Amino acid sequence: MTEHEPASQRTTMKRGTNRAVYSPDEIRAVLQAGMIAHVGVTTEDGPIVLPMAYGLRGDQILVHGSVANAMLRGGRGIDVCITVTIVDGLVVARSPLHNSMNYRSVVIRGLASPITDPADQADALKVINDHLALIWDTARAPSESDYKQTLVLSVPLAEASAKIRDGDPIDDDDDIAGPCWAGVLPLTSTWGNPIDSADLRDGIQPPTAVNTLSGSDAHG
Amino acid sequence: MTEHEPASQRTTMKRGTNRAVYSPDEIRAVLQAGMIAHVGVTTEDGPIVLPMAYGLRGDQILVHGSVANAMLRGGRGIDVCITVTIVDGLVVARSPLHNSMNYRSVVIRGLASPITDPADQADALKVINDHLALIWDTARAPSESDYKQTLVLSVPLAEASAKIRDGDPIDDDDDIAGPCWAGVLPLTSTWGNPIDSADLRDGIQPPTAVNTLSGSDAHG
Repeated sequence: MTEHEPASQRTTMKRGTNRAVYSPDEIRAVLQAGMIAHVGVTTEDGPIVLPMAYGLRGDQILVHGSVANAMLRGGRGIDVCITVTIVDGLVVARSPLHNSMNYRSVVIRGLASPITDPADQADALKVINDHLALIWDTARAPSESDYKQTLVLSVPLAEASAKIRDGDPIDDDDDIAGPCWAGVLPLTSTWGNPIDSADLRDGIQPPTAVNTLSGSDAHG
Repeated sequence: MTEHEPASQRTTMKRGTNRAVYSPDEIRAVLQAGMIAHVGVTTEDGPIVLPMAYGLRGDQILVHGSVANAMLRGGRGIDVCITVTIVDGLVVARSPLHNSMNYRSVVIRGLASPITDPADQADALKVINDHLALIWDTARAPSESDYKQTLVLSVPLAEASAKIRDGDPIDDDDDIAGPCWAGVLPLTSTWGNPIDSADLRDGIQPPTAVNTLSGSDAHG
């Protein structure tokens, strides 16, 4: 990571446990491990932040959802902030105000553009769909009318930065000599066993892509 | 939930699996089960969304972090949107564009005010600290100078709404008769075993509050 040192260090950083990351590879790794994006836009009624599914394609992040329609009501190209956060653990310090969380987070600021070309939109939706699980090709192919209800936005990753905190709490020397415990309680998100839909016909098994995820680390 | 039906239904709602929730009790339950908030504000450079720790006190949500300082640079009282999302599972439909996620989400819009009274700030920080784990009282008490580095914001829950999706995918009848699998892959977040800090002195054990969390559902 030494090749991509941040230009300026935040005041909370010390002992290397809490740092901003500007390496495109590390930013991409966080985005690949993340599950949902929180997308913020400015409206006439103030800021709004909504959770959305996302995917990565080339140097763009793609988001979609019916909410995208409302967000884009103002026209083509709007200023957005897309934030993806993974919580990795609770950091317990000897002084309560030094408690923290271990996390990986990426903040992307940029101009969101709607993807309107039909073939491009179909590809973008497949990318978003397959971000969590490769289940697109195990379902029936979408029809033309399916696509019309969905809006996909594309935002360049050019203005992305990551912040990663890992490792131990940072206590003052006086506190380290004291009687209190300090450490980390790790957090793991795991996919469970597939649950058949109530309307599933007899004898149909989950696809391999679903069975493969089952039991695995969701941020792995 | 019948006592608190939403005033208007979103277009995506059908068959009762996807609904907006306006009951204060249900909104509070989602916020109590959540872990981090994504806080959005409007800046001169466009919207920004940052992950922050939070807690609940009376009819207010409290957030804190060094980033709060930058967010409040414009003065007292700023328009914010605070969104808390818990992902509960991957919803696999027979048609890929009907794939979805099961989730619980709360969106709060309102005016954020800094908490400046020292006793009030101390209480607010304890509330935020204890949101995930009751570890405040097992550490040394904070000093006066500890408090000076932290800014806490308070936002009323008056303009809060929740959206909860659970249950099966919603497929078209033609697809239900087809050969594809449909169902849910549940997601569970679990606290692991406590890891001692590298600088922990010999013989100090984790407090009961930490041991109690270990192995439990983080959104339980």
